[in-house]
Amino acid sequence: MDRIPILKLGSALLVTIQVDMHDRLATALQEDLTEKIVATHAKGVLIDISALEIVDSFIGRMLDHIAAISRMLDAETVVVGMRPAVAITLVELGLSLTGVRTALDVERGMEMIRRRLEEPEVADGDDAGA
Amino acid sequence: MDRIPILKLGSALLVTIQVDMHDRLATALQEDLTEKIVATHAKGVLIDISALEIVDSFIGRMLDHIAAISRMLDAETVVVGMRPAVAITLVELGLSLTGVRTALDVERGMEMIRRRLEEPEVADGDDAGA
Repeated sequence: MDRIPILKLGSALLVTIQVDMHDRLATALQEDLTEKIVATHAKGVLIDISALEIVDSFIGRMLDHIAAISRMLDAETVVVGMRPAVAITLVELGLSLTGVRTALDVERGMEMIRRRLEEPEVADGDDAGA
Repeated sequence: MDRIPILKLGSALLVTIQVDMHDRLATALQEDLTEKIVATHAKGVLIDISALEIVDSFIGRMLDHIAAISRMLDAETVVVGMRPAVAITLVELGLSLTGVRTALDVERGMEMIRRRLEEPEVADGDDAGA
């Protein structure tokens, strides 16, 4: 397997991480996601990590990276299904995933993205014009 | 990885198959799916196989099996994202997946399940009473 599938669900993209990530796979995922956000005009990226029992700093950084790239393309990243032990590890590693939102499951993640779409666009860049 | 994650999306369950299936993983998936269909009252099971470049008779039979079990529990199985080469292989293997519906992508698969929910329930067992 050299590619992680990216599924389109309404205005969001869903990625389920099931396999051990290595450099090339992570790079491929970032590239594929970027292209797909642009191609589908997606407003959100859901990354399901419920299959991961261990998250190391490499994956932590990858999630941060994906969130940063998605934000540039006006899509919000929501990490879903994180196990409690993984949350503890991430904090211990000093990775608090500041640019990433989290939700307990895909449905709540989708709800977050849906709510974001309903918010008035003005709220974001309001101060700049004042 | 000893479990394939099953994600709940509305009234459907979504499974993305990314890794090589072996006996134990396939059995675990069937058990997990069965439990989750009952627990969530899911009406559909979406199995995304877009990551699979090769589908052998083992996976073909597993898909058939899952569809048969789901049907018993009143949930419809839709296989999504099948590559053209995989479709050719399945037919050559004599596995035409008769109990399984297919859709090109997850969104169309979800649409199928949604439409099924809207259909009047009477249509199914109508003849039995006549």
